[in-house]
Amino acid sequence: MPTIVVDVMPKAELLDPQGKAVAGALSRLGHEGFSGVRIGKRFELTVDTADEQTLATVKTIAEEILSNAVIEDVVGIEVVE
Amino acid sequence: MPTIVVDVMPKAELLDPQGKAVAGALSRLGHEGFSGVRIGKRFELTVDTADEQTLATVKTIAEEILSNAVIEDVVGIEVVE
Repeated sequence: MPTIVVDVMPKAELLDPQGKAVAGALSRLGHEGFSGVRIGKRFELTVDTADEQTLATVKTIAEEILSNAVIEDVVGIEVVE
Repeated sequence: MPTIVVDVMPKAELLDPQGKAVAGALSRLGHEGFSGVRIGKRFELTVDTADEQTLATVKTIAEEILSNAVIEDVVGIEVVE
């Protein structure tokens, strides 16, 4: 059965405390060259068919259910298998 | 500056209660055709250069810092911009 991946990230202008914590940990652990880390969510939806209508439904679901439009953006919807 | 995306998902054999909750919500809201939902994390790392060495470092970081090898798998590492 096909899988549709939905990627959701915090809006760019928002502070990402988790991301800052990871970035701090990377430099403390000696990993240089990382100027920023942002953390979001990745949803894998197993669907019966990956037709146009399903993709349209997934877009609606992504914006209304899987993400909070006030603080997050849906940055990707992709049929993977 | 280039961005490297790291995708981390819970191991397939593990129960994903969050995913089950979302799947339940989708069917309650009338969205049929979704037989499974799994939720993972998506990291966007802003790096100075996206050369081979940086990618090797990101692979190590992904496995040792960004994911818990006991319950999660790193399912993707990709240079995005």
